[in-house]
Amino acid sequence: MSEHRVTFHPYGKSVDAVDGETLIRLAMDAGVHINASCGGAGVCGKCRVVIEEGIVEGGITEKLDAEDLARGVRLACQCRVRSDLVVRIPVESEVDASFLNKTAGPRKTAHIHQVSFEELKERGLFIPPVEKRYLEIPPPSRLDRMPDVTRMINFLKMRYNEHRLVVRLPVIRKIPDILRAADFKVTVTLARPVQPGRKTHIINIEPGDTTQRNFAIGVDIGTTTVYGELIDLVSGEVLAHHGEFNGQISYGEDVLSRIVYAEKPGGLEKLHELVVATINTIIREIIQEAKVTPDEISSITVAGNTTMTQLLLEITPRYIRYAPYVPASTLYPPIPAVRLGLELSDHVTALVYPAVSSYVGGDIVAGVMGAGLYRTHEITLYLDIGTNAEIVVGNKDWFACAACSAGPAFEGGGIKFGMRAAKGAIEDFSIDPFTLEPMLMTIGNVRPRGICGSGLITIVASLLEAGVIDGRGKFDCSLHHERLRDVDGVCEYVLAWANETQIGRDITLTEDDIDNLIRAKGAIFSGFQTLLEEVGLRIEDVHRIVLAGGFGSYLDLEKAMTIGLLPEVDPEKITYIGNGSLMGCRMSSLTNRIRRDVVEVTRKMTSFELSETPSYMTHYIAALFLPHTDVDHFPKLKARMDARRSIYGTMPFRESTVTEGGVTS
Amino acid sequence: MSEHRVTFHPYGKSVDAVDGETLIRLAMDAGVHINASCGGAGVCGKCRVVIEEGIVEGGITEKLDAEDLARGVRLACQCRVRSDLVVRIPVESEVDASFLNKTAGPRKTAHIHQVSFEELKERGLFIPPVEKRYLEIPPPSRLDRMPDVTRMINFLKMRYNEHRLVVRLPVIRKIPDILRAADFKVTVTLARPVQPGRKTHIINIEPGDTTQRNFAIGVDIGTTTVYGELIDLVSGEVLAHHGEFNGQISYGEDVLSRIVYAEKPGGLEKLHELVVATINTIIREIIQEAKVTPDEISSITVAGNTTMTQLLLEITPRYIRYAPYVPASTLYPPIPAVRLGLELSDHVTALVYPAVSSYVGGDIVAGVMGAGLYRTHEITLYLDIGTNAEIVVGNKDWFACAACSAGPAFEGGGIKFGMRAAKGAIEDFSIDPFTLEPMLMTIGNVRPRGICGSGLITIVASLLEAGVIDGRGKFDCSLHHERLRDVDGVCEYVLAWANETQIGRDITLTEDDIDNLIRAKGAIFSGFQTLLEEVGLRIEDVHRIVLAGGFGSYLDLEKAMTIGLLPEVDPEKITYIGNGSLMGCRMSSLTNRIRRDVVEVTRKMTSFELSETPSYMTHYIAALFLPHTDVDHFPKLKARMDARRSIYGTMPFRESTVTEGGVTS
Repeated sequence: MSEHRVTFHPYGKSVDAVDGETLIRLAMDAGVHINASCGGAGVCGKCRVVIEEGIVEGGITEKLDAEDLARGVRLACQCRVRSDLVVRIPVESEVDASFLNKTAGPRKTAHIHQVSFEELKERGLFIPPVEKRYLEIPPPSRLDRMPDVTRMINFLKMRYNEHRLVVRLPVIRKIPDILRAADFKVTVTLARPVQPGRKTHIINIEPGDTTQRNFAIGVDIGTTTVYGELIDLVSGEVLAHHGEFNGQISYGEDVLSRIVYAEKPGGLEKLHELVVATINTIIREIIQEAKVTPDEISSITVAGNTTMTQLLLEITPRYIRYAPYVPASTLYPPIPAVRLGLELSDHVTALVYPAVSSYVGGDIVAGVMGAGLYRTHEITLYLDIGTNAEIVVGNKDWFACAACSAGPAFEGGGIKFGMRAAKGAIEDFSIDPFTLEPMLMTIGNVRPRGICGSGLITIVASLLEAGVIDGRGKFDCSLHHERLRDVDGVCEYVLAWANETQIGRDITLTEDDIDNLIRAKGAIFSGFQTLLEEVGLRIEDVHRIVLAGGFGSYLDLEKAMTIGLLPEVDPEKITYIGNGSLMGCRMSSLTNRIRRDVVEVTRKMTSFELSETPSYMTHYIAALFLPHTDVDHFPKLKARMDARRSIYGTMPFRESTVTEGGVTS
Repeated sequence: MSEHRVTFHPYGKSVDAVDGETLIRLAMDAGVHINASCGGAGVCGKCRVVIEEGIVEGGITEKLDAEDLARGVRLACQCRVRSDLVVRIPVESEVDASFLNKTAGPRKTAHIHQVSFEELKERGLFIPPVEKRYLEIPPPSRLDRMPDVTRMINFLKMRYNEHRLVVRLPVIRKIPDILRAADFKVTVTLARPVQPGRKTHIINIEPGDTTQRNFAIGVDIGTTTVYGELIDLVSGEVLAHHGEFNGQISYGEDVLSRIVYAEKPGGLEKLHELVVATINTIIREIIQEAKVTPDEISSITVAGNTTMTQLLLEITPRYIRYAPYVPASTLYPPIPAVRLGLELSDHVTALVYPAVSSYVGGDIVAGVMGAGLYRTHEITLYLDIGTNAEIVVGNKDWFACAACSAGPAFEGGGIKFGMRAAKGAIEDFSIDPFTLEPMLMTIGNVRPRGICGSGLITIVASLLEAGVIDGRGKFDCSLHHERLRDVDGVCEYVLAWANETQIGRDITLTEDDIDNLIRAKGAIFSGFQTLLEEVGLRIEDVHRIVLAGGFGSYLDLEKAMTIGLLPEVDPEKITYIGNGSLMGCRMSSLTNRIRRDVVEVTRKMTSFELSETPSYMTHYIAALFLPHTDVDHFPKLKARMDARRSIYGTMPFRESTVTEGGVTS
């Protein structure tokens, strides 16, 4: 993938770059600070760099004059790599660049969990739940009057050694005409039993040979977002992927408000219809994208949290919100997709992932199955971080699981300029420790509109390491900087000035925002800490941490450890799986092994109610600090901060030394 | 049952009578002729009898004068038995009454097959397919957070040793609210697996204890008539029974014309809807009659011929009418009743009896199962006589079956005054061998409107024995009687004069009618003759004959043997089972043994195509005679007719001796 080598001076840092990457993104990834407050939109003109060697494209705007251009100055956010480069960042003060180089934190990104279809096949884990068979059946005659169905079944026995076959009524209805129209050359779709020895269902018949056209759909129903993907059951590849906001969102942002709405007359039906409509939109999108017809879809697998699952199945979620918080069921029978209102053929069965409890749902079980936690003796900690965080720890023999409410901070809720991870959201950030000037990156490289969850973590972590905020999340009042100000008694930092934003107002980070983030990360940290303690383990006993969820996949590991959201462990131990729920659905679509094992796995999963575990509150209060009251849990961060302090002093910035644009002494 | 003894003079015949029975019905059953041509309506005034001893009720009309009344004269058709009686029939000529007594034919009615629920239980044949269990479940608590469904399943395991339980989605939807509304005291409905070791489905949950309210429905779908009954699954009793004409009837009288209609655009859907509407009407009727609510119905079992079954299931019957006459399927999967459009709860599964071939359908299989043919080593001949006659012969190891088209004569089709067995149809008949005057009985004892199938057989048999028609079915032209006449070259016998009928026209039996009857009975006789021959048996090898079908149950055995519809066997060997199809449905509703065995039984059933068996046509032509070309097959009849001839002469009536009202010499 890497095509060019880019070296940033004066830091002497080199990184590999894909052709066409912007210099500002490379600098951000390399931990090289460049002032930039318009999110990469090319507006603020602050991200000036000098191209000393090599070829770039773009980066020339009216912000630069002829002299600048002659010197090789370009705007980093508009400038794309086209060869190996040597780039110089103009810095007004000489700092110990070698130190910056040395203090590079842990890996910023975790390994990405890959599933190999070929490997699954080799390991005998590939037992296709739905297969097609092409048949050329001898037609009936005066001497052979077998009924059509018997004829087909007997041929399948003889030709493919298929036994214990049953045919569903809709297929029986199609058989007579299709057999004759297709000259008795047909393809049948076989749905395999999950338990060996059970019956194989003939669920469809098509004229001719369609064995190469066999597809499945996986759907993750999130409270906020629903994702679907289209899987080719012949190649094992994902052909299309699409996400939509859950149509229920206007009836409540979170699970609890949905339950409340479902209790109203007609509410359950309404929420059911809305999520079905969302899934149907996704189905249409991915079918179109993958150039597949609805008839070619043979199965659908769905996972969601317990409330989302019950709403999909039109089961009242009422008792989930009342003590003792009992769900209607944690196992759901297979059901014809059309009976849920899904726009699929009537031969498609919807499989719904089982749950563990009211607050540990099928999405988590799907992730546990998809990531293979249940196949290893090594202890894994599985974290799905969102508004509600779910935590699983265990191995093939046992699992403990719990859920805790992190609050909406990670999705931008309760944050003054918070927003979801959409275009214009500040997603990356760095601060110049001398000038306190920011470097912002937005999603889509447009002027900033707000801050998304991953951006928030990065901003707070950077401000903490730079000493702008302290461990309590309070701004250092001794700093005098135009970006730091007090509004109605609440201190805040100006990330972008009004004229640099899309919204025409200063975008700031407030102490209240930081408080909310601390509570969110504290809930999660104390959550897995308590759960581990309940099963007699420490974080050191965990062999692997799996981060799931759309949000988890954007997490900058270093920053997440800096604020104390993640424990400080070897980043090699951490794996991203992205949408674990969707991964589990994909795996179930590809192999019956998952379907067979999943019920057993859920039986091994013990659910803990953190809110009723006394130590949880103790742990939670201790975690309401950046990174943690007990900083000994974070030795590397402590070392880093101590080192920085030794260079810059506890408060490196004094009013006298700071002016707009740079440090003068 | 019998309460009174009634003796008819001058014949000296005595019969047992139920209190309230009419004298004319008793006389008819006893083989005592009384002139009567208004069908028992009390109109013709011909059925005068003298009550010599005992008490009767009614029978006094304006047709009788004071002197008649003083002598004890009554009209037999209006006169009800209230004590032991001695009744004298006024006969103008003294005949050898003792002869009439001696020549009483075989038993007129066969034994009726009875199913004993208690006996089934004792023999271990009673394995209820659907059972209810009352549960008092401990509610959840902080220390016991099991999901509702798991809680219920665990309790069933613990309390009733129930295992391998699955819960369907509609039940899961009901569980949370019902459990709490009913204080965790509920009744669940369990649908047992047909094969041992499979899963038991929890198909319903109700508040409180409803274990004593558990019902099933059985439905026989005939081409002409649909019958349903409501079965109490606790007591095994039939609580209600109702029949309706099949709503499809206006789209074709017979199977073939229905298939033709089903081939038209929308035709299949239309016929499907019509039969479903008919079944729904029946369901409403029997539910109301038995004072049961729709929710208390737990199962429905349906049987019909192959075309009726395919129309119910909306499977095209198209290929049934084209060589090589292949049905779509002979096994049908269980299907939720609501998906067929049946007005039952969504937890009810419809079971549909499997068929053998295009022309031997589920109704016959149901009869074979219901009558227990498959449990004995004795050879049974099973006859279901209707427009299409189905024939099965075999024992527990094998069955041969075939169907033949008898034509519509038995249902009144092709008969000048033919009608279905409805009010006003002549259903019983006797003729005075001297006067040739008839004794008619109609359904409902109203003035006659026409002749139904059983009436037709009785009339023809009586006319044959009286020598009015000969073996070819032709009237004896040498007889001169006002009831015998020639209309446009076709000879006919006047059964009732216009002023005695409901229709204001003479009701007659024509030679064409007799021809049609001969063809119908010939088809059936040659049918079982051929089938027996194909499997190397003779009628003497048959241990038992089972007569099924609404029509079969009305058959007068003596008359049926007289015309050669049935072979002349010991009537003790013959059993009526009435609607065998409905009986099979009832048995399946009561015990899973039937459901388990039925697939195996259908595998043992070999279907023969009579139309392609060369000897069938030979046998058929030989059977186009009354009773048969080879009268040696009917030795008793031959003896009877020879005896009669010796008394009355070949032609007992001569023009000179016959006048209206009696014989003078």
